[in-house]
Amino acid sequence: MRTKVVIIGSGPSGLLLGQLLTNAGIDNVILERASKAHVLSRIRAGVLEEGTAALLDEAGVGKRMRHEGLPHDGFDLAFDNRRHRVDLHELTCGKRVLVYGQTEVTHDLMDGREAAGAVTVYEAGNVQPHDYDGARPYVTYEKNGNTHRIDCDFIAGCDGFHGISRKSIPQDAIESFERVYPFGWLGIVADVPPVGEELIYANHPRGFALCSMRSTTRSRYYVQVEADERVEDWSDERFWDEIRDRLPTATAEAMITGPSIEKSIAPLRSFVAEPMRFGCLFLTGDAAHIVPPTGAKGLNLAASDVRYLFDAFREFYIERSSAGMDDYSNKALSRVWKAERFSWWMTSTLHRFPDQGAFGQRIQHAELDYLFQSRAALTMLAENYVGLPY
Amino acid sequence: MRTKVVIIGSGPSGLLLGQLLTNAGIDNVILERASKAHVLSRIRAGVLEEGTAALLDEAGVGKRMRHEGLPHDGFDLAFDNRRHRVDLHELTCGKRVLVYGQTEVTHDLMDGREAAGAVTVYEAGNVQPHDYDGARPYVTYEKNGNTHRIDCDFIAGCDGFHGISRKSIPQDAIESFERVYPFGWLGIVADVPPVGEELIYANHPRGFALCSMRSTTRSRYYVQVEADERVEDWSDERFWDEIRDRLPTATAEAMITGPSIEKSIAPLRSFVAEPMRFGCLFLTGDAAHIVPPTGAKGLNLAASDVRYLFDAFREFYIERSSAGMDDYSNKALSRVWKAERFSWWMTSTLHRFPDQGAFGQRIQHAELDYLFQSRAALTMLAENYVGLPY
Repeated sequence: MRTKVVIIGSGPSGLLLGQLLTNAGIDNVILERASKAHVLSRIRAGVLEEGTAALLDEAGVGKRMRHEGLPHDGFDLAFDNRRHRVDLHELTCGKRVLVYGQTEVTHDLMDGREAAGAVTVYEAGNVQPHDYDGARPYVTYEKNGNTHRIDCDFIAGCDGFHGISRKSIPQDAIESFERVYPFGWLGIVADVPPVGEELIYANHPRGFALCSMRSTTRSRYYVQVEADERVEDWSDERFWDEIRDRLPTATAEAMITGPSIEKSIAPLRSFVAEPMRFGCLFLTGDAAHIVPPTGAKGLNLAASDVRYLFDAFREFYIERSSAGMDDYSNKALSRVWKAERFSWWMTSTLHRFPDQGAFGQRIQHAELDYLFQSRAALTMLAENYVGLPY
Repeated sequence: MRTKVVIIGSGPSGLLLGQLLTNAGIDNVILERASKAHVLSRIRAGVLEEGTAALLDEAGVGKRMRHEGLPHDGFDLAFDNRRHRVDLHELTCGKRVLVYGQTEVTHDLMDGREAAGAVTVYEAGNVQPHDYDGARPYVTYEKNGNTHRIDCDFIAGCDGFHGISRKSIPQDAIESFERVYPFGWLGIVADVPPVGEELIYANHPRGFALCSMRSTTRSRYYVQVEADERVEDWSDERFWDEIRDRLPTATAEAMITGPSIEKSIAPLRSFVAEPMRFGCLFLTGDAAHIVPPTGAKGLNLAASDVRYLFDAFREFYIERSSAGMDDYSNKALSRVWKAERFSWWMTSTLHRFPDQGAFGQRIQHAELDYLFQSRAALTMLAENYVGLPY
């Protein structure tokens, strides 16, 4: 079998890249290790930058997102028992974000791919990229006891942090940068109306909290917990008590609670691998970089990688120029590092750190205090939150 | 002997407060442990915010400063072998800073005090504030073998980090916040023309460097060194080689070197004591807080404390209101913490830290990169550098 681009991984970045390529008439095959149902069961972030939403529109899969997604013109930062609004729309001259779950994005992209008749191989075992340093790359995988081979021009590694794409690259060809944060996020989903119309990020002496949502009837709430905390130790009651303790009194009193339908603990990590291209193999999204969830940059960064990579492939196939591909890694990394910086800053400003001490806490407070007294500082926060330009 | 305000310490904040009080007809006495010559021999920073310069004008001692001080409309940040200008004047709608040495400020204030005929006791030994928690505070000191007592309404502690004022306060009445940085600044003064017309702050893999000046013929240069470095180990030649290594090539090549006339190593520290008022005792400047020198906030913060405290005293004596005094600590601390945040941020962004790792270095780089791509971020830097509003 032969195709132009083999895409490893059918998460949002692989599916989005596939959709854009298919629409442009560039053949591609997606290989996914898991089943379709498993891919759809992953619950992730859901705050889309305008650039991400525009790219989904461009891919022709934005219809339901525009219908069901919740446009947010701002969000709140809570500290000192008060909520302070960040008016994104006003500060960025008209930009906003769209709250629409990653699972829904994946769903829409899968539907789009099916409608376009493009090939996805689910439950593809032992996927292996080969010879991507030479001129004749190919990918092998196993399915139903048989080994298959797909020859291709390029391989797109869209298979996440734990995927084979980055791991197949020789150690000495890649430089990794990492920070593991000394805490995690305990998150729940509950079918209760969200306490605020917009997101609320809280800095509290007991730790960070976030009130988010999937829809007007489904809430997504988080509290910072110790890195070694066990989800079994958190009853719903304990969770609700804890998050209410960390919110301004008026907000806590207005909060409607209910049984959780999902509950899990996620670690927080910053990670970047450089470069993002090795011969004919290109990494995108979590395969190349991880951000902590504070600020919701993960999916959006995957989308901007896909934007750059799709443009590069289009240039190559339509305009016969490899300039875009040669520039891909530098271009993507420049944006990646700024989003890493923002996610690190927002994480650092809103969480308790075991080693920050009294001075560090006061600096955090001064940072928050300053934000709401300086239009420049608040604009800086807003322009990063809605997404820096591509 | 009796006066209204006893000022402990004849550094810039004590002298400035004394001058403003004297001009307003409010009697005061300054007690200084050291000799006048010793006070004048201290070499410190010399970048004045507009608010500081305006306050010196208001005190009637700004004439020489306006004549000899060098107005700077911007400064440079150097990284990646390039200089990037921060146009303070343009970013802050017309503000600038004034380069004028702290020694000169002290000189002008001493001259002003002498002309006004106000009392300063130099070489006052064993200065002790008493009963400042009650209604009848007084200060004792020794001079020429005799013990003297001055009764007063208020005591202003302007005697720096190591002074008696803060130390005389019971431990349990004061909360301290501190960060000691794991490096120092090795600084030299040389009678050579400065390499740039404005200041150059450099972030380099070998460490931070700063090109500053006292005048158009006298330069003040610094390099970051290990905390335990000894000044004896730094010949002039070694210093010049080191600073040139840390500057962009073109800048290093343009640098004119010469024999140092002063050479010393200073540690970097962030420190805040809360509150800044205890009964009739008020702390100002370094007696209450220390900033690392990056961003030149120390003297300016002392000046804003004096602004608030003088206004409070004037309100008390002229308008018979103690509202300003009751508000002094909160008002001063609110500005202090923002300047602490800025100084900490600028220190963190420009220095090498032993524990920052490869990820931390990339974050620093992303921060600098982002600064020069975002007007909001650059404005944030500029508005802090020229001084936040009082």
